Amino acid sequence: MVELRNNERIDDLQLNGLKLIQDPEAFCFGVDAVLLSDFADVKKGHRVLDIGTGTGIIPILLAGKTQAAAVVGLEIQETVAEMASRSVSLNGLEDRVEILCGDVREYSRYFGKSSFDVVVSNPPYTNKGCGLVNPHDSKAVSRHEILCTLEDVVGAAGALLAPGGQLAMVHRPERLADIVCCMRNCGIEPKYLRMVHPKPFKKPSMILIKGSRGGKPELKVMEPLYVYNADGTYSHEINRIYGR
Amino acid sequence: MVELRNNERIDDLQLNGLKLIQDPEAFCFGVDAVLLSDFADVKKGHRVLDIGTGTGIIPILLAGKTQAAAVVGLEIQETVAEMASRSVSLNGLEDRVEILCGDVREYSRYFGKSSFDVVVSNPPYTNKGCGLVNPHDSKAVSRHEILCTLEDVVGAAGALLAPGGQLAMVHRPERLADIVCCMRNCGIEPKYLRMVHPKPFKKPSMILIKGSRGGKPELKVMEPLYVYNADGTYSHEINRIYGR
Repeated sequence: MVELRNNERIDDLQLNGLKLIQDPEAFCFGVDAVLLSDFADVKKGHRVLDIGTGTGIIPILLAGKTQAAAVVGLEIQETVAEMASRSVSLNGLEDRVEILCGDVREYSRYFGKSSFDVVVSNPPYTNKGCGLVNPHDSKAVSRHEILCTLEDVVGAAGALLAPGGQLAMVHRPERLADIVCCMRNCGIEPKYLRMVHPKPFKKPSMILIKGSRGGKPELKVMEPLYVYNADGTYSHEINRIYGR
Repeated sequence: MVELRNNERIDDLQLNGLKLIQDPEAFCFGVDAVLLSDFADVKKGHRVLDIGTGTGIIPILLAGKTQAAAVVGLEIQETVAEMASRSVSLNGLEDRVEILCGDVREYSRYFGKSSFDVVVSNPPYTNKGCGLVNPHDSKAVSRHEILCTLEDVVGAAGALLAPGGQLAMVHRPERLADIVCCMRNCGIEPKYLRMVHPKPFKKPSMILIKGSRGGKPELKVMEPLYVYNADGTYSHEINRIYGR
Protein backbone atom coordinates (compact mmCIF):
# COMPACT_ATOMS: atom_id res chain seq x y z
CA MET A 1 0.00 0.00 0.00
CA VAL A 2 1.46 3.33 -1.09
CA GLU A 3 0.90 6.41 1.02
CA LEU A 4 -0.37 9.78 -0.30
CA ARG A 5 0.80 13.06 1.28
CA ASN A 6 -0.74 16.55 1.48
CA ASN A 7 -2.43 17.43 -1.84
CA GLU A 8 -1.22 14.39 -3.72
CA ARG A 9 -3.50 12.35 -5.91
CA ILE A 10 -3.13 9.22 -8.02
CA ASP A 11 -3.62 9.70 -11.77
CA ASP A 12 -4.36 6.82 -14.12
CA LEU A 13 -1.95 7.04 -17.09
CA GLN A 14 -4.46 5.16 -19.29
CA LEU A 15 -1.70 2.89 -20.51
CA ASN A 16 -1.15 -0.72 -19.43
CA GLY A 17 -2.78 0.20 -16.10
CA LEU A 18 0.11 2.51 -15.14
CA LYS A 19 -0.50 5.07 -12.43
CA LEU A 20 1.31 8.19 -11.21
CA ILE A 21 1.29 10.16 -7.98
CA GLN A 22 1.14 13.91 -8.65
CA ASP A 23 0.72 17.01 -6.55
CA PRO A 24 -1.48 19.45 -8.49
CA GLU A 25 0.15 22.34 -6.57
CA ALA A 26 3.54 21.34 -7.99
CA PHE A 27 4.63 20.59 -11.56
CA CYS A 28 2.42 18.01 -13.31
CA PHE A 29 3.52 16.05 -16.34
CA GLY A 30 2.37 17.12 -19.77
CA VAL A 31 2.10 15.91 -23.33
CA ASP A 32 5.85 16.62 -23.76
CA ALA A 33 6.84 13.77 -21.42
CA VAL A 34 4.46 11.38 -23.19
CA LEU A 35 5.78 12.33 -26.64
CA LEU A 36 9.38 11.99 -25.50
CA SER A 37 8.73 8.48 -24.11
CA ASP A 38 7.37 7.51 -27.52
CA PHE A 39 10.18 9.24 -29.46
CA ALA A 40 13.18 7.66 -27.67
CA ASP A 41 14.47 4.40 -29.19
CA VAL A 42 14.54 2.17 -26.12
CA LYS A 43 15.18 -1.48 -26.99
CA LYS A 44 15.21 -4.78 -25.11
CA GLY A 45 17.94 -4.92 -22.48
CA HIS A 46 18.76 -1.20 -22.65
CA ARG A 47 19.92 0.79 -19.65
CA VAL A 48 18.20 4.17 -19.66
CA LEU A 49 18.75 7.37 -17.66
CA ASP A 50 16.14 10.13 -17.34
CA ILE A 51 17.75 13.40 -16.25
CA GLY A 52 15.42 15.59 -14.19
CA THR A 53 12.74 12.94 -13.88
CA GLY A 54 10.30 14.95 -11.76
CA THR A 55 7.24 12.82 -10.94
CA GLY A 56 8.94 9.82 -12.60
CA ILE A 57 6.51 9.87 -15.52
CA ILE A 58 9.12 9.04 -18.16
CA PRO A 59 10.79 6.07 -16.37
CA ILE A 60 7.35 4.65 -15.55
CA LEU A 61 6.10 4.99 -19.13
CA LEU A 62 9.34 3.56 -20.55
CA ALA A 63 9.33 0.61 -18.14
CA GLY A 64 5.67 -0.01 -18.96
CA LYS A 65 6.03 0.29 -22.75
CA THR A 66 9.49 -1.14 -23.49
CA GLN A 67 11.71 -4.06 -22.55
CA ALA A 68 14.41 -1.84 -21.05
CA ALA A 69 16.49 -3.72 -18.48
CA ALA A 70 16.79 -0.74 -16.17
CA VAL A 71 15.56 2.83 -16.08
CA VAL A 72 17.09 5.33 -13.66
CA GLY A 73 15.37 8.63 -12.96
CA LEU A 74 17.62 11.35 -11.53
CA GLU A 75 15.87 14.15 -9.64
CA ILE A 76 17.45 16.90 -7.56
CA GLN A 77 14.40 17.86 -5.49
CA GLU A 78 14.10 15.51 -2.52
CA THR A 79 10.33 15.67 -2.00
CA VAL A 80 9.72 15.22 -5.74
CA ALA A 81 12.14 12.27 -5.96
CA GLU A 82 10.48 10.65 -2.96
CA MET A 83 7.04 11.01 -4.58
CA ALA A 84 8.40 9.50 -7.82
CA SER A 85 9.76 6.53 -5.82
CA ARG A 86 6.31 5.90 -4.39
CA SER A 87 4.86 5.95 -7.93
CA VAL A 88 7.41 3.31 -8.92
CA SER A 89 6.26 1.14 -6.01
CA LEU A 90 2.60 1.82 -6.82
CA ASN A 91 3.23 0.25 -10.25
CA GLY A 92 5.34 -2.61 -8.87
CA LEU A 93 8.27 -1.52 -11.06
CA GLU A 94 10.97 -1.49 -8.33
CA ASP A 95 12.93 -4.26 -10.07
CA ARG A 96 13.46 -2.18 -13.24
CA VAL A 97 13.07 1.45 -12.19
CA GLU A 98 15.18 3.32 -9.70
CA ILE A 99 14.68 6.94 -8.64
CA LEU A 100 17.85 8.58 -7.45
CA CYS A 101 17.88 11.93 -5.66
CA GLY A 102 20.95 13.74 -6.94
CA ASP A 103 22.44 16.59 -8.90
CA VAL A 104 23.16 16.07 -12.61
CA ARG A 105 26.23 18.30 -12.29
CA GLU A 106 27.74 15.58 -10.07
CA TYR A 107 26.87 12.70 -12.40
CA SER A 108 30.29 11.09 -11.99
CA ARG A 109 29.52 10.46 -8.31
CA TYR A 110 26.59 8.19 -9.22
CA PHE A 111 27.34 6.59 -12.59
CA GLY A 112 30.27 5.15 -14.52
CA LYS A 113 31.34 6.49 -17.91
CA SER A 114 29.50 5.02 -20.93
CA SER A 115 27.07 3.21 -18.62
CA PHE A 116 23.80 3.98 -20.46
CA ASP A 117 22.39 3.06 -23.89
CA VAL A 118 19.82 5.86 -23.89
CA VAL A 119 19.61 9.13 -21.98
CA VAL A 120 16.32 11.03 -22.08
CA SER A 121 15.43 14.43 -20.68
CA ASN A 122 12.52 16.83 -20.54
CA PRO A 123 14.66 19.55 -18.99
CA PRO A 124 13.69 22.97 -17.67
CA TYR A 125 12.84 25.01 -20.79
CA THR A 126 13.55 28.56 -19.75
CA ASN A 127 17.03 29.97 -20.08
CA LYS A 128 19.03 30.80 -16.99
CA GLY A 129 18.66 34.43 -16.14
CA CYS A 130 15.31 34.90 -17.88
CA GLY A 131 13.07 36.56 -15.30
CA LEU A 132 12.98 36.40 -11.52
CA VAL A 133 12.54 32.92 -10.14
CA ASN A 134 12.52 31.43 -6.65
CA PRO A 135 15.04 28.58 -6.32
CA HIS A 136 12.98 27.08 -3.46
CA ASP A 137 9.85 26.91 -5.59
CA SER A 138 9.44 23.38 -6.95
CA LYS A 139 7.50 24.48 -10.05
CA ALA A 140 10.18 27.07 -10.85
CA VAL A 141 12.97 24.48 -10.54
CA SER A 142 11.11 22.26 -13.01
CA ARG A 143 10.62 25.06 -15.52
CA HIS A 144 13.69 27.29 -15.30
CA GLU A 145 17.36 26.47 -15.62
CA ILE A 146 18.05 27.13 -11.96
CA LEU A 147 19.62 23.86 -10.85
CA CYS A 148 20.16 22.28 -14.25
CA THR A 149 21.05 23.94 -17.56
CA LEU A 150 20.95 22.52 -21.07
CA GLU A 151 24.75 22.27 -20.93
CA ASP A 152 24.52 20.22 -17.69
CA VAL A 153 22.11 17.72 -19.27
CA VAL A 154 23.93 17.33 -22.58
CA GLY A 155 27.36 17.29 -20.93
CA ALA A 156 26.29 14.48 -18.60
CA ALA A 157 24.79 12.55 -21.52
CA GLY A 158 28.03 12.93 -23.49
CA ALA A 159 29.94 11.29 -20.65
CA LEU A 160 27.38 8.68 -19.59
CA LEU A 161 26.28 7.34 -22.98
CA ALA A 162 28.05 4.37 -24.52
CA PRO A 163 29.50 5.05 -28.00
CA GLY A 164 26.57 5.10 -30.43
CA GLY A 165 24.18 5.63 -27.52
CA GLN A 166 21.23 7.97 -27.89
CA LEU A 167 20.26 11.24 -26.22
CA ALA A 168 16.55 12.04 -26.73
CA MET A 169 15.14 15.36 -25.58
CA VAL A 170 11.97 17.40 -25.79
CA HIS A 171 12.42 21.17 -25.71
CA ARG A 172 11.18 24.50 -27.02
CA PRO A 173 11.82 25.50 -30.65
CA GLU A 174 13.56 28.74 -29.63
CA ARG A 175 16.35 26.69 -28.05
CA LEU A 176 17.02 24.60 -31.17
CA ALA A 177 20.25 26.40 -32.10
CA ASP A 178 21.50 26.11 -28.50
CA ILE A 179 20.67 22.39 -28.40
CA VAL A 180 22.31 21.55 -31.73
CA CYS A 181 25.52 23.41 -30.90
CA CYS A 182 25.61 22.08 -27.35
CA MET A 183 25.18 18.48 -28.56
CA ARG A 184 28.04 18.84 -31.04
CA ASN A 185 30.26 20.41 -28.39
CA CYS A 186 29.58 17.40 -26.17
CA GLY A 187 30.29 14.76 -28.85
CA ILE A 188 26.63 13.99 -29.56
CA GLU A 189 25.64 14.40 -33.21
CA PRO A 190 22.03 15.54 -33.81
CA LYS A 191 20.43 12.80 -35.97
CA TYR A 192 16.62 13.15 -35.83
CA LEU A 193 14.49 16.25 -35.39
CA ARG A 194 10.74 16.29 -35.16
CA MET A 195 8.68 19.44 -34.81
CA VAL A 196 5.47 19.23 -32.79
CA HIS A 197 2.76 21.63 -34.00
CA PRO A 198 -0.59 22.29 -32.30
CA LYS A 199 -2.19 22.10 -35.78
CA PRO A 200 -1.00 21.77 -39.42
CA PHE A 201 -0.66 25.49 -40.25
CA LYS A 202 0.69 26.61 -36.86
CA LYS A 203 4.23 27.19 -35.66
CA PRO A 204 5.77 24.32 -33.71
CA SER A 205 5.34 24.53 -29.94
CA MET A 206 7.85 21.78 -29.10
CA ILE A 207 10.74 19.97 -30.69
CA LEU A 208 11.82 16.36 -30.25
CA ILE A 209 15.48 15.73 -30.98
CA LYS A 210 17.66 12.62 -30.91
CA GLY A 211 21.43 12.60 -31.11
CA SER A 212 23.96 9.81 -31.29
CA ARG A 213 27.20 9.79 -29.31
CA GLY A 214 29.97 9.93 -31.91
CA GLY A 215 27.50 9.82 -34.84
CA LYS A 216 28.19 11.08 -38.37
CA PRO A 217 26.78 14.50 -39.31
CA GLU A 218 23.42 14.27 -41.07
CA LEU A 219 20.21 15.45 -39.48
CA LYS A 220 17.00 13.77 -40.56
CA VAL A 221 14.11 16.18 -40.19
CA MET A 222 11.04 13.99 -39.80
CA GLU A 223 7.38 14.49 -40.74
CA PRO A 224 5.75 17.11 -38.51
CA LEU A 225 3.75 15.82 -35.55
CA TYR A 226 0.41 17.62 -35.29
CA VAL A 227 -1.38 17.38 -31.95
CA TYR A 228 -4.78 18.32 -33.40
CA ASN A 229 -6.17 17.97 -36.89
CA ALA A 230 -7.39 21.11 -38.66
CA ASP A 231 -10.94 20.28 -37.43
CA GLY A 232 -9.88 20.26 -33.75
CA THR A 233 -9.96 16.48 -33.21
CA TYR A 234 -6.84 14.69 -31.97
CA SER A 235 -4.51 13.55 -34.73
CA HIS A 236 -4.13 9.87 -35.54
CA GLU A 237 -0.62 9.92 -34.19
CA ILE A 238 -1.59 11.42 -30.84
CA ASN A 239 -4.27 8.77 -30.52
CA ARG A 240 -1.68 6.08 -31.31
CA ILE A 241 0.81 7.45 -28.77
CA TYR A 242 -1.87 7.64 -26.08
CA GLY A 243 -2.99 4.12 -27.03
CA ARG A 244 -6.50 5.17 -28.02
CA MET B 1 19.39 43.71 -77.89
CA VAL B 2 20.78 40.82 -75.85
CA GLU B 3 22.47 37.93 -77.58
CA LEU B 4 21.67 34.23 -76.96
CA ARG B 5 24.40 31.55 -77.23
CA ASN B 6 24.29 27.81 -77.93
CA ASN B 7 21.30 26.20 -76.22
CA GLU B 8 20.25 29.28 -74.30
CA ARG B 9 16.66 30.39 -74.11
CA ILE B 10 14.84 33.31 -72.49
CA ASP B 11 12.37 32.36 -69.74
CA ASP B 12 9.63 34.70 -68.55
CA LEU B 13 9.75 34.90 -64.72
CA GLN B 14 6.03 35.79 -64.64
CA LEU B 15 6.78 38.62 -62.23
CA ASN B 16 6.83 42.31 -63.12
CA GLY B 17 7.83 41.31 -66.66
CA LEU B 18 11.22 39.97 -65.49
CA LYS B 19 13.07 37.57 -67.79
CA LEU B 20 16.00 35.21 -67.38
CA ILE B 21 18.46 33.62 -69.80
CA GLN B 22 18.96 29.93 -69.02
CA ASP B 23 20.78 27.04 -70.64
CA PRO B 24 18.64 23.90 -70.17
CA GLU B 25 21.80 21.77 -70.46
CA ALA B 26 23.25 23.55 -67.39
CA PHE B 27 21.73 24.22 -63.98
CA CYS B 28 18.31 25.93 -64.13
CA PHE B 29 16.80 27.84 -61.24
CA GLY B 30 14.19 26.20 -59.07
CA VAL B 31 11.55 26.96 -56.50
CA ASP B 32 14.33 27.27 -53.87
CA ALA B 33 15.68 30.49 -55.44
CA VAL B 34 12.18 31.96 -55.64
CA LEU B 35 11.39 31.08 -52.00
CA LEU B 36 14.71 32.52 -50.80
CA SER B 37 14.07 35.81 -52.63
CA ASP B 38 10.75 36.06 -50.80
CA PHE B 39 12.22 35.00 -47.41
CA ALA B 40 15.10 37.51 -47.22
CA ASP B 41 14.29 40.83 -45.55
CA VAL B 42 15.55 43.26 -48.18
CA LYS B 43 14.52 46.84 -47.44
CA LYS B 44 14.75 50.18 -49.23
CA GLY B 45 18.33 51.30 -49.74
CA HIS B 46 19.88 47.95 -48.76
CA ARG B 47 23.08 46.65 -50.29
CA VAL B 48 22.69 42.93 -51.00
CA LEU B 49 25.17 40.21 -51.97
CA ASP B 50 24.14 36.88 -53.52
CA ILE B 51 26.91 34.30 -53.13
CA GLY B 52 26.96 31.74 -55.96
CA THR B 53 24.39 33.58 -58.04
CA GLY B 54 24.35 31.16 -61.00
CA THR B 55 21.94 32.45 -63.66
CA GLY B 56 21.42 35.63 -61.60
CA ILE B 57 17.87 34.64 -60.72
CA ILE B 58 18.04 35.93 -57.13
CA PRO B 59 19.55 39.38 -57.84
CA ILE B 60 17.05 39.88 -60.69
CA LEU B 61 14.07 38.87 -58.52
CA LEU B 62 15.30 41.01 -55.60
CA ALA B 63 15.91 44.04 -57.81
CA GLY B 64 12.47 43.54 -59.36
CA LYS B 65 10.59 43.02 -56.08
CA THR B 66 12.38 45.28 -53.57
CA GLN B 67 13.81 48.77 -53.29
CA ALA B 68 17.35 47.52 -52.69
CA ALA B 69 19.93 50.13 -53.68
CA ALA B 70 22.35 47.57 -55.10
CA VAL B 71 22.44 43.82 -55.55
CA VAL B 72 25.72 42.08 -56.36
CA GLY B 73 25.74 38.50 -57.64
CA LEU B 74 29.03 36.65 -57.18
CA GLU B 75 29.61 33.67 -59.46
CA ILE B 76 32.78 31.67 -59.95
CA GLN B 77 31.97 30.11 -63.33
CA GLU B 78 32.84 32.54 -66.10
CA THR B 79 30.35 31.39 -68.74
CA VAL B 80 27.55 31.31 -66.13
CA ALA B 81 28.44 34.78 -64.80
CA GLU B 82 28.52 36.15 -68.32
CA MET B 83 25.07 34.69 -69.04
CA ALA B 84 23.76 36.23 -65.79
CA SER B 85 25.15 39.63 -66.85
CA ARG B 86 23.22 39.40 -70.10
CA SER B 87 20.04 38.63 -68.11
CA VAL B 88 20.64 41.77 -66.07
CA SER B 89 20.90 43.79 -69.30
CA LEU B 90 17.84 42.07 -70.73
CA ASN B 91 15.85 43.42 -67.76
CA GLY B 92 17.47 46.88 -67.87
CA LEU B 93 18.70 46.45 -64.31
CA GLU B 94 22.37 47.41 -64.87
CA ASP B 95 22.05 50.45 -62.58
CA ARG B 96 21.15 48.31 -59.53
CA VAL B 97 22.46 44.81 -60.26
CA GLU B 98 26.08 43.83 -60.85
CA ILE B 99 27.31 40.33 -61.67
CA LEU B 100 30.87 39.73 -60.55
CA CYS B 101 32.87 36.72 -61.67
CA GLY B 102 34.93 35.72 -58.67
CA ASP B 103 35.70 33.20 -55.93
CA VAL B 104 33.89 33.57 -52.59
CA ARG B 105 37.03 32.32 -50.83
CA GLU B 106 38.73 35.54 -51.97
CA TYR B 107 35.90 37.83 -50.89
CA SER B 108 38.28 40.35 -49.34
CA ARG B 109 39.71 41.10 -52.81
CA TYR B 110 36.33 42.36 -54.02
CA PHE B 111 34.47 43.79 -51.02
CA GLY B 112 35.16 45.81 -47.88
CA LYS B 113 34.31 44.49 -44.38
CA SER B 114 30.74 45.12 -43.21
CA SER B 115 29.77 46.40 -46.66
CA PHE B 116 26.42 44.59 -47.04
CA ASP B 117 23.07 44.77 -45.23
CA VAL B 118 21.89 41.39 -46.49
CA VAL B 119 23.77 38.37 -47.84
CA VAL B 120 21.72 35.63 -49.53
CA SER B 121 22.82 32.27 -50.86
CA ASN B 122 21.35 29.18 -52.47
CA PRO B 123 24.64 27.32 -52.19
CA PRO B 124 25.61 23.89 -53.51
CA TYR B 125 23.70 21.44 -51.31
CA THR B 126 25.82 18.32 -51.39
CA ASN B 127 28.66 17.88 -48.95
CA LYS B 128 32.23 17.95 -50.17
CA GLY B 129 33.46 14.44 -50.76
CA CYS B 130 30.02 12.88 -51.29
CA GLY B 131 30.30 10.90 -54.52
CA LEU B 132 32.44 11.39 -57.62
CA VAL B 133 31.98 14.72 -59.31
CA ASN B 134 33.60 16.46 -62.24
CA PRO B 135 34.91 19.93 -61.30
CA HIS B 136 34.64 21.06 -64.94
CA ASP B 137 30.96 20.16 -65.10
CA SER B 138 28.88 23.30 -64.58
CA LYS B 139 25.88 21.43 -63.13
CA ALA B 140 28.15 19.63 -60.66
CA VAL B 141 29.74 22.90 -59.50
CA SER B 142 26.25 24.29 -58.83
CA ARG B 143 25.14 21.24 -56.85
CA HIS B 144 28.22 19.98 -55.00
CA GLU B 145 30.59 21.76 -52.65
CA ILE B 146 33.48 21.64 -55.12
CA LEU B 147 34.41 25.31 -55.39
CA CYS B 148 32.36 26.65 -52.48
CA THR B 149 31.52 25.00 -49.16
CA LEU B 150 28.98 26.01 -46.53
CA GLU B 151 31.88 27.31 -44.43
CA ASP B 152 33.06 29.50 -47.34
CA VAL B 153 29.61 31.08 -47.73
CA VAL B 154 28.93 31.66 -44.03
CA GLY B 155 32.50 32.77 -43.34
CA ALA B 156 32.29 35.40 -46.10
CA ALA B 157 28.89 36.56 -44.82
CA GLY B 158 30.28 36.90 -41.28
CA ALA B 159 32.98 39.26 -42.59
CA LEU B 160 30.95 41.16 -45.19
CA LEU B 161 27.73 41.82 -43.25
CA ALA B 162 27.36 45.01 -41.25
CA PRO B 163 26.59 44.44 -37.54
CA GLY B 164 22.93 43.37 -37.32
CA GLY B 165 22.99 42.46 -41.03
CA GLN B 166 21.16 39.38 -42.25
CA LEU B 167 22.32 36.15 -43.87
CA ALA B 168 19.43 34.30 -45.56
CA MET B 169 19.95 30.85 -47.03
CA VAL B 170 17.99 28.01 -48.53
CA HIS B 171 19.41 24.54 -47.99
CA ARG B 172 18.61 20.90 -47.36
CA PRO B 173 17.20 19.79 -43.98
CA GLU B 174 20.02 17.26 -43.47
CA ARG B 175 22.52 20.12 -43.28
CA LEU B 176 20.59 22.02 -40.56
CA ALA B 177 22.99 21.10 -37.75
CA ASP B 178 25.98 22.05 -39.92
CA ILE B 179 24.38 25.38 -40.83
CA VAL B 180 23.43 26.34 -37.27
CA CYS B 181 26.86 25.51 -35.86
CA CYS B 182 28.68 27.14 -38.77
CA MET B 183 26.65 30.35 -38.40
CA ARG B 184 27.46 30.57 -34.69
CA ASN B 185 31.14 29.92 -35.35
CA CYS B 186 31.11 32.83 -37.82
CA GLY B 187 29.33 35.28 -35.48
CA ILE B 188 25.93 34.96 -37.14
CA GLU B 189 23.13 33.95 -34.78
CA PRO B 190 20.34 31.83 -36.34
CA LYS B 191 17.11 33.82 -35.80
CA TYR B 192 14.40 32.44 -38.13
CA LEU B 193 13.89 28.93 -39.46
CA ARG B 194 11.19 27.89 -41.87
CA MET B 195 10.71 24.34 -43.07
CA VAL B 196 9.41 23.85 -46.61
CA HIS B 197 7.29 20.70 -47.02
CA PRO B 198 5.94 19.32 -50.31
CA LYS B 199 2.61 18.73 -48.48
CA PRO B 200 1.25 19.04 -44.90
CA PHE B 201 2.04 15.50 -43.69
CA LYS B 202 5.38 15.10 -45.50
CA LYS B 203 8.95 15.62 -44.31
CA PRO B 204 10.48 18.98 -45.23
CA SER B 205 12.44 19.01 -48.47
CA MET B 206 14.10 22.39 -47.91
CA ILE B 207 14.85 24.79 -45.10
CA LEU B 208 14.94 28.56 -45.15
CA ILE B 209 17.11 30.11 -42.46
CA LYS B 210 17.95 33.69 -41.52
CA GLY B 211 20.68 34.73 -39.12
CA SER B 212 21.73 38.06 -37.74
CA ARG B 213 25.36 39.16 -37.41
CA GLY B 214 25.96 39.54 -33.67
CA GLY B 215 22.32 38.70 -32.80
CA LYS B 216 21.11 37.35 -29.45
CA PRO B 217 20.41 33.60 -29.21
CA GLU B 218 16.74 32.76 -29.80
CA LEU B 219 15.58 30.89 -32.87
CA LYS B 220 12.04 31.53 -34.07
CA VAL B 221 10.74 28.46 -35.85
CA MET B 222 8.04 29.73 -38.18
CA GLU B 223 4.84 28.17 -39.55
CA PRO B 224 5.66 25.43 -42.06
CA LEU B 225 5.54 26.39 -45.73
CA TYR B 226 3.65 23.78 -47.75
CA VAL B 227 4.19 23.83 -51.51
CA TYR B 228 1.03 21.87 -52.28
CA ASN B 229 -2.19 21.49 -50.34
CA ALA B 230 -3.29 18.00 -49.36
CA ASP B 231 -5.49 17.93 -52.52
CA GLY B 232 -2.50 18.58 -54.84
CA THR B 233 -3.30 22.23 -55.68
CA TYR B 234 -0.67 24.92 -54.99
CA SER B 235 -0.88 26.38 -51.49
CA HIS B 236 -2.08 29.94 -50.97
CA GLU B 237 1.41 30.96 -49.97
CA ILE B 238 3.08 29.57 -53.08
CA ASN B 239 0.50 31.40 -55.17
CA ARG B 240 1.24 34.61 -53.25
CA ILE B 241 5.03 34.21 -53.69
CA TYR B 242 4.64 33.54 -57.41
CA GLY B 243 2.26 36.51 -57.63
CA ARG B 244 -0.69 34.46 -58.85
